[in-house]
Amino acid sequence: MRINGQPGHALPAADRGLHYGDGLFETLAVTRGEPLLWEAHMARLARGCQHLGIRAPDPELLLHECRSEIDAEQRCVIKLILTRGSGGRGYRPPARPSSTLIVTRYVPPDHPAGWWRDGVRVVRCHTRLAIQPRLAGVKHLNRLEQVLARSEWSDPQIAEGLMCDAEGRPVEGTLSNLFLVRDGRLFTPPLERCGVAGVMRAQVMVLAAERGEPVQEQDITWGHLGEADALFLTNALIGLWPVRSLAGRDYATTGIPRWLRQAVMPLALGPLESIATQA
Amino acid sequence: MRINGQPGHALPAADRGLHYGDGLFETLAVTRGEPLLWEAHMARLARGCQHLGIRAPDPELLLHECRSEIDAEQRCVIKLILTRGSGGRGYRPPARPSSTLIVTRYVPPDHPAGWWRDGVRVVRCHTRLAIQPRLAGVKHLNRLEQVLARSEWSDPQIAEGLMCDAEGRPVEGTLSNLFLVRDGRLFTPPLERCGVAGVMRAQVMVLAAERGEPVQEQDITWGHLGEADALFLTNALIGLWPVRSLAGRDYATTGIPRWLRQAVMPLALGPLESIATQA
Repeated sequence: MRINGQPGHALPAADRGLHYGDGLFETLAVTRGEPLLWEAHMARLARGCQHLGIRAPDPELLLHECRSEIDAEQRCVIKLILTRGSGGRGYRPPARPSSTLIVTRYVPPDHPAGWWRDGVRVVRCHTRLAIQPRLAGVKHLNRLEQVLARSEWSDPQIAEGLMCDAEGRPVEGTLSNLFLVRDGRLFTPPLERCGVAGVMRAQVMVLAAERGEPVQEQDITWGHLGEADALFLTNALIGLWPVRSLAGRDYATTGIPRWLRQAVMPLALGPLESIATQA
Repeated sequence: MRINGQPGHALPAADRGLHYGDGLFETLAVTRGEPLLWEAHMARLARGCQHLGIRAPDPELLLHECRSEIDAEQRCVIKLILTRGSGGRGYRPPARPSSTLIVTRYVPPDHPAGWWRDGVRVVRCHTRLAIQPRLAGVKHLNRLEQVLARSEWSDPQIAEGLMCDAEGRPVEGTLSNLFLVRDGRLFTPPLERCGVAGVMRAQVMVLAAERGEPVQEQDITWGHLGEADALFLTNALIGLWPVRSLAGRDYATTGIPRWLRQAVMPLALGPLESIATQA
């Protein structure tokens, strides 16, 4: 772990990241010693900084910090936390904030390879995402809704929980974004009211647009989910998980474009045994 | 500052309080070396712990920790932060969490005495409170809405900003609760959809009920604010501030019951020069 460019494990307890969740984070997949989708993560971090009025750090410096945590050829997860640092008077940010940067390396999660190949089981969470356009899309440190939602199940066979917004529209998983396939077309909920704009979600949208099959952002209802041919979840670590069942309904994974599953694979950690060798 | 019962200023950077805002806080007024409204703060902390599924610490232990930070006869502010500690897998809380307790002493804010006597100027914030019944009332560590709202003004003559919920109803200040006086009756917005249930708000409601003039909790509109005879704000540090002006409209402070202002005074820090000597 590195804190503000130095090896360390302790943070000033006065940090606004602790007091108010006044900061942002990024979770990056690292394979062969290189962070994946680096530009996309940096772009999202910069957007988040702009939203919160935190000065965005130099991406070159961030890359150096990340590399200092990564051994050559390593497969790991890097979490960057950027806070507004200490100071200010109560909620009021300091006039000249000195932000805090924490870089932590984690062992990749060891999910079963079948979750990539055959799909995952997903529950419907009771905890809802509040509608807050001012923070929607931003990967900030106020994550109690996700903590409460993830507390709703303990069955290790369940991979993810789907969260709805305050008005009951399905929006995303606790740690992944949601896509639907219907008649060969791709759909994903917009994230202007709530939710986190995942870098893998953005990547899927770019890949699909390049293929001439653009993803449509549109409000999703439970009716849409029921009529979907297939569902899948994305994030920067897993890449893409087909949904095998959601809230008791089964889904085929065959509707998910094969080209997309293959295109996403090298952009994320995926299973330890590559899906390619098992397909 | 004390962390988990030891003097210190550093927190493990793996703490869930930092990563997710997974915790609670209390801000207490201390006069003559004694925390004020101790039982009320402990009751709210216990309710918050129940909401988040964090084990509530023994109030005796907490009191000991607070006293270790307070010099005899001291007038100060104590902030308690209680987090779910480190551990767990991502958002999922650890099965056996070991919570983190941080006790920090602050110098009381030096607001002008006139803010208690003549009232305060209040702006209307653009940042709204998202509607999240699951977290409403709880003094948790997810406070980005307050940080954004407090960033909206820098004029030191402005004491507070009034925040509305997502549907435009005035709810509370960034760090205070709101009361209205109309025809001698007291009203305050309910906090079942959003907002923080302040201990001074609760205290005012108890005092008013004991007096046989119970506060009515009801949804407040801007129309109600316009028709009010007087407005005031409360929190555990300031006690009670009359509102002198809100969003350009002036208010008389005479409508606020004198008995209430006097009853609240010994329960909070108030101005350095006591309001009693100036009245």
